[in-house]
Amino acid sequence: MVKIGIADTTFARFDMGKAAIDELKRNCSAQIVRYTVPGIKDLPVACKKLFDEQHCDIVMALGMPGSKPVDKTCAHEASMGIIICQLMTGRHIIEVFVHEDEAPDARELAALMEKRAREHALNVVKLMFKPKILEKEAGTGQRQGYEDVGPARI
Amino acid sequence: MVKIGIADTTFARFDMGKAAIDELKRNCSAQIVRYTVPGIKDLPVACKKLFDEQHCDIVMALGMPGSKPVDKTCAHEASMGIIICQLMTGRHIIEVFVHEDEAPDARELAALMEKRAREHALNVVKLMFKPKILEKEAGTGQRQGYEDVGPARI
Amino acid sequence: MVKIGIADTTFARFDMGKAAIDELKRNCSAQIVRYTVPGIKDLPVACKKLFDEQHCDIVMALGMPGSKPVDKTCAHEASMGIIICQLMTGRHIIEVFVHEDEAPDARELAALMEKRAREHALNVVKLMFKPKILEKEAGTGQRQGYEDVGPARI
Amino acid sequence: MVKIGIADTTFARFDMGKAAIDELKRNCSAQIVRYTVPGIKDLPVACKKLFDEQHCDIVMALGMPGSKPVDKTCAHEASMGIIICQLMTGRHIIEVFVHEDEAPDARELAALMEKRAREHALNVVKLMFKPKILEKEAGTGQRQGYEDVGPARI
Amino acid sequence: MVKIGIADTTFARFDMGKAAIDELKRNCSAQIVRYTVPGIKDLPVACKKLFDEQHCDIVMALGMPGSKPVDKTCAHEASMGIIICQLMTGRHIIEVFVHEDEAPDARELAALMEKRAREHALNVVKLMFKPKILEKEAGTGQRQGYEDVGPARI
Repeated sequence: MVKIGIADTTFARFDMGKAAIDELKRNCSAQIVRYTVPGIKDLPVACKKLFDEQHCDIVMALGMPGSKPVDKTCAHEASMGIIICQLMTGRHIIEVFVHEDEAPDARELAALMEKRAREHALNVVKLMFKPKILEKEAGTGQRQGYEDVGPARI
Repeated sequence: MVKIGIADTTFARFDMGKAAIDELKRNCSAQIVRYTVPGIKDLPVACKKLFDEQHCDIVMALGMPGSKPVDKTCAHEASMGIIICQLMTGRHIIEVFVHEDEAPDARELAALMEKRAREHALNVVKLMFKPKILEKEAGTGQRQGYEDVGPARI
Repeated sequence: MVKIGIADTTFARFDMGKAAIDELKRNCSAQIVRYTVPGIKDLPVACKKLFDEQHCDIVMALGMPGSKPVDKTCAHEASMGIIICQLMTGRHIIEVFVHEDEAPDARELAALMEKRAREHALNVVKLMFKPKILEKEAGTGQRQGYEDVGPARI
Repeated sequence: MVKIGIADTTFARFDMGKAAIDELKRNCSAQIVRYTVPGIKDLPVACKKLFDEQHCDIVMALGMPGSKPVDKTCAHEASMGIIICQLMTGRHIIEVFVHEDEAPDARELAALMEKRAREHALNVVKLMFKPKILEKEAGTGQRQGYEDVGPARI
Repeated sequence: MVKIGIADTTFARFDMGKAAIDELKRNCSAQIVRYTVPGIKDLPVACKKLFDEQHCDIVMALGMPGSKPVDKTCAHEASMGIIICQLMTGRHIIEVFVHEDEAPDARELAALMEKRAREHALNVVKLMFKPKILEKEAGTGQRQGYEDVGPARI
């Protein structure tokens, strides 16, 4: 049975992990293991542990970088670590980051975090169970959390 | 028989993978395997999997970074991962990125994406089958998607 | 018995290591080993040594980046090293950085450094002994050194 | 016999590889192997291949980053890859990059590219055959392509 | 007997390696091996070689980044390489970088380079022979090349 890891943070202002787990359960049959860490810079090793210690096949890394310049740097460092972790393990980590300044207020921020978490959960389902759907969607301007942009035509 | 991997994304707004595959088929005899992932940050591990699981000899990584500052950071992270993946495997990944803001409108964007994908496919053919041609073109100001700039002369 | 490493610097202007050790001792029963290095760029290998030579289960890396642009770059480099070290060892390093320009004067700087060191020490305790508490706090906007921001509500 | 690898690109606007090889041949007795790739981001793995497959003792990586911001990012990524490659192999890669905007026109650009390639070829000769000369030049403000700056005196 | 490596460059405008060696000899009994390379981007692999081929226990990496933006990028790349090298070997590299624009003129630049090299040599002595002194100096605002800033008090 496929095992999906959920790594998330106490720093984020919405429980994206819960939304992702709910969406996964609605759309596939998989074992789910969750691991919550303080902040986004703790996510890379959290993913590594989910692969090494929990034997996950794929991991979602959910976080909310803050709005200050130092937060942008943290997000970049976390993302680099998440990419290196994937190269070390040969397995996908679907990064779901919502920047705190992507939304004008707390209500829209929470809505965006929920939407993006759910839509990326569907990407996990496609990667693990229906890769041919992704191939069909190649180059079609898919977005997560926002409306799809759609393809550009010559 | 040479095996060429094609890694591309659903985020991109033109099917560069299809264009690359068409160009490869016109210009060489090789086995081609395609793997589509959600976004450019998923490309490094997609390439790693194409090498490790599919035993590709070379991979093309095709993506379209968006126009916002955060998209530029994502492109940088993806590129670093693609370089590290090449160092881990000792094999080439030809990165074909077209930034969404390289073209003034959707029509020209799509045309640029197709052109660059096709011209880099020819680079793959040269690297695998005709390395002496590349040596002859050394220092001649070749470009992909745009007109060649040509050499500077003393 | 859990072994916790404390890596800190002589560059910092407050003894965060001492504060962290005090807080750890109040809240858990663990063996603690301390290793002080000159600056934050020496922290990644200090952590590596605490894992490899001292067999620590987790490490706190405490430092105070200066306020000049070059200091920000140093902090970024140190953070990347700390993330890579975690991926190499599969163990957590809780990074506790206080930027010198986060506080308006020396008195508030010292207070912030003490507070953040103590609050991150509690994160270490949770990670090692009470991971279920972190899971309950997922997405609740926890902060270290400042007031918690709290969750965003839809 | 010492084996020197020459990695260069078709993107560059002057044949620095040819200049480097000519200078090497005038100044030492070594086997030289050349490998041309499309752009600077292909150089790190080109070097890795020259070490692993061609058993080179040292490599020169010659490239010309363009003048746009995205080109500066590419140069940074290539340089990081070149440094990581050196750490993986324990062998020197002498990076010879000339930025397209270092010179006011094509004629001076070509002259600078030739000069820097030749002067760095001499550094390769020193590293492999005459390391004591480098030690004597330590801290003397050597430059490649431009006039030496010379030492600062107390 | 402890073996200390000294990696420095011909690009720098003051012989920091000589100053560091002099200071080390005055303050400890150790075997010293020196390795001079062209520029700071050659330092990471120089350190790797000093560890792997010369079996050094610790290395000092001394360099002078220039004042242009491209020099700042080079310094960042060199620093990242130096940190990665430390993580690969589990040994300290004390980076001693003086930026050319830290001093208003050549005379003060040379004085700063000498002072910082000597003071970091003392850090090497402490790390190898007197680690308890560093622990006592934790959080006391030590600086190298400039006056110590001292601790911030609550």
